[in-house]
Amino acid sequence: MLKQISKKNERVEEVFNLFIAHVQNFLKEANLNHEEYTNFVDWADRLGRAGELPLYADVFLESHVLRAMYTDKPGTQPSLLGPYFVEGTPLIEAKPGQPLVLTQRPNEAGDVMYFSGNVSSTNGEPLAKARVEMWQNDASGKYSAFDSEAPKYNFRGHFYTDENGNFEVKTIVPLPYSIPTDGPTGEFLEYTDQHPMRPAHLHLMFEAEGHETLITQVFFEGDEWLETDVADGVRLDLMTKIEEKDGCKVSSLDFVMRTV
Amino acid sequence: MLKQISKKNERVEEVFNLFIAHVQNFLKEANLNHEEYTNFVDWADRLGRAGELPLYADVFLESHVLRAMYTDKPGTQPSLLGPYFVEGTPLIEAKPGQPLVLTQRPNEAGDVMYFSGNVSSTNGEPLAKARVEMWQNDASGKYSAFDSEAPKYNFRGHFYTDENGNFEVKTIVPLPYSIPTDGPTGEFLEYTDQHPMRPAHLHLMFEAEGHETLITQVFFEGDEWLETDVADGVRLDLMTKIEEKDGCKVSSLDFVMRTV
Repeated sequence: MLKQISKKNERVEEVFNLFIAHVQNFLKEANLNHEEYTNFVDWADRLGRAGELPLYADVFLESHVLRAMYTDKPGTQPSLLGPYFVEGTPLIEAKPGQPLVLTQRPNEAGDVMYFSGNVSSTNGEPLAKARVEMWQNDASGKYSAFDSEAPKYNFRGHFYTDENGNFEVKTIVPLPYSIPTDGPTGEFLEYTDQHPMRPAHLHLMFEAEGHETLITQVFFEGDEWLETDVADGVRLDLMTKIEEKDGCKVSSLDFVMRTV
Repeated sequence: MLKQISKKNERVEEVFNLFIAHVQNFLKEANLNHEEYTNFVDWADRLGRAGELPLYADVFLESHVLRAMYTDKPGTQPSLLGPYFVEGTPLIEAKPGQPLVLTQRPNEAGDVMYFSGNVSSTNGEPLAKARVEMWQNDASGKYSAFDSEAPKYNFRGHFYTDENGNFEVKTIVPLPYSIPTDGPTGEFLEYTDQHPMRPAHLHLMFEAEGHETLITQVFFEGDEWLETDVADGVRLDLMTKIEEKDGCKVSSLDFVMRTV
């Protein structure tokens, strides 16, 4: 008889037991009654069946995970990956004499913006050929591949920093964004009297050998939702401004990756 | 312009804030990395889309909710409601000279058992006309209305205690039961190296004016899964035994409801 291969995962067991210990502390304080428990399970069931669990988790929990991991560490603070990341995006290559252009349709609507930055290491060196993944919403406020008519990889792509760790990419100014409100996540927002808005942001993910992958976002001064971002993603060192230069909008931020 | 009706629910806000405070403590201790977070969200998304969230919550969390609510309180301990409760069950009425019979098919398979008990109050009085809701699995180990070919209300029904708080109902001996293992809940069991079994049990819910609704279960001595019930539902005062009497199986347990 073949021995069944064990799928036991001691890390899952350890994390679950720790979670339950803290849930027990929570329950002692919360004085939950059984009807509240069953109401919660009904709501969570609807959330799960609607496919909104990643949305809810990324909006209401991911920032807490990141703060626990990274606060007080050197390097650029991460911000949430969010539910709108898609794998397999196209490589964006520079054409001679032209800037990198984030994947977009011909005559794409929106305010053209050149976003630039430098990627360096906490050891002080610029990071040449670091991989930069970038995604954002379009002028209708939507993310491609999610409730949008745009092609799957619209405003999604990856490219590499130059020999000095610099990059510049042509895109559009992203827009403040309402998370979906027509399902159980929206119900939760109503119960807790919160608006559904996120300030305008770019999503960026940096990968470089010998460094921790940095998943973060860039925010812009003057946005009315910075202070009350529903997903609590804003960090001071992720703020920049949008300026006018030669009739175009330009914006810039530098990023520092932690050595492993 | 009409003022929008606020759906704000301060209790939801209070419980959520308390939950997040404890999650923050959990995260500090667990040292979760971002990949573990995204693996968790992927799993939870599959759990939710498969409709297994109530199963998972009732098996792995509900007992903790109940222990926080009831341990050290007088009266019979509750046990989990579980995911197999169904509303709208038939009223079971006594026919002259015959016992109450829990809803079942003609020639229903299984070992016939007469289950009896008394319902009284923590104030010492027997509770006449208390409403007793009862449900259990059949001789194939399945619950009607869930992955079973039996009619919706098979082995489900409600009845009332007599003037002395007593009841007796004809049913069959319930069977140990494996929770479903083919979905994300089963994956979790594999990761944490747990078997999927629950010991045989009857589900009972008692309602009586002036008393807290008592949702509980009855377990039987000798069952091999009592010590390791996957749902942690067994309590000492919910244990009874199955005996032979006049060629039939009989079993009995008394229940004490808390005054409100």
